[in-house]
Amino acid sequence: MKKTHYLDDLEVGQKFGSGRYLLDEDAIKRFAAEYDPQPFHLDHDAAKDTLFKGLAASGWHTAALTMRLFVESEFRPAGGFIGAGIEGLQWHQPVRPGDELSIEAEILEVRPSKSKPEQGIVKVRTTTYNQRHEPVQTFVANMVVKRNLP
Amino acid sequence: MKKTHYLDDLEVGQKFGSGRYLLDEDAIKRFAAEYDPQPFHLDHDAAKDTLFKGLAASGWHTAALTMRLFVESEFRPAGGFIGAGIEGLQWHQPVRPGDELSIEAEILEVRPSKSKPEQGIVKVRTTTYNQRHEPVQTFVANMVVKRNLP
Repeated sequence: MKKTHYLDDLEVGQKFGSGRYLLDEDAIKRFAAEYDPQPFHLDHDAAKDTLFKGLAASGWHTAALTMRLFVESEFRPAGGFIGAGIEGLQWHQPVRPGDELSIEAEILEVRPSKSKPEQGIVKVRTTTYNQRHEPVQTFVANMVVKRNLP
Repeated sequence: MKKTHYLDDLEVGQKFGSGRYLLDEDAIKRFAAEYDPQPFHLDHDAAKDTLFKGLAASGWHTAALTMRLFVESEFRPAGGFIGAGIEGLQWHQPVRPGDELSIEAEILEVRPSKSKPEQGIVKVRTTTYNQRHEPVQTFVANMVVKRNLP
């Protein structure tokens, strides 16, 4: 059983790692067909003449897989991963078939709520890497985390 | 055949609507199992005692469906929907089984690139509504759009 992190267990600078997720071509096309049906996410040949210069995963697929890696990471926020909002979501380079993704989360800010004493907001920078440890996506999440009050 | 929008066809204040997408319970659980496996997205009973007070779609599911509605909307950016980044992604209230989503996109800024004369950046505010026309999600996307040069 992994440790649960209450707001009061977290501090600025703490980092959490994750497992890895191998993204294959079939998964890229399946996500795209359902949520982002554009040629550069669906078809090798059609993708060649686009800005991506070859098949690439939807950015929203990378975001969804980042969430999966986050939920399964060493970070276990009390009450679950509940996002109040995301700042500055950026995709730095394409994710290709065969890429293996992993994430690192770093606590940037820990702030008890004034109006709701049983919880607070934690600001977490989340970086998604490929197998060459190149960042493919970054964002900062504002998460609601429970306090461990007596 | 719908009209393609080159950078030079777009202007601040233009708005684009979309079709509708009915989100059922099975789809919510299926997305959650693959990308956001947390009790409040997977199980009615387990969701009751959480901040969501009942089954709710993953925010990333809403984001992915927003992309689908965006791709199928009246907005047809030349070169496709290519996001350079997302600012201020916020979830305003839970999306529940049976909710019907639609989006509205509004052009906030149109800026030709100085370094790449064949393209530019368009800033688009995207609001996702439920069937009661309540906003459930908002973000501002910075998109790369081709110019129609002679």
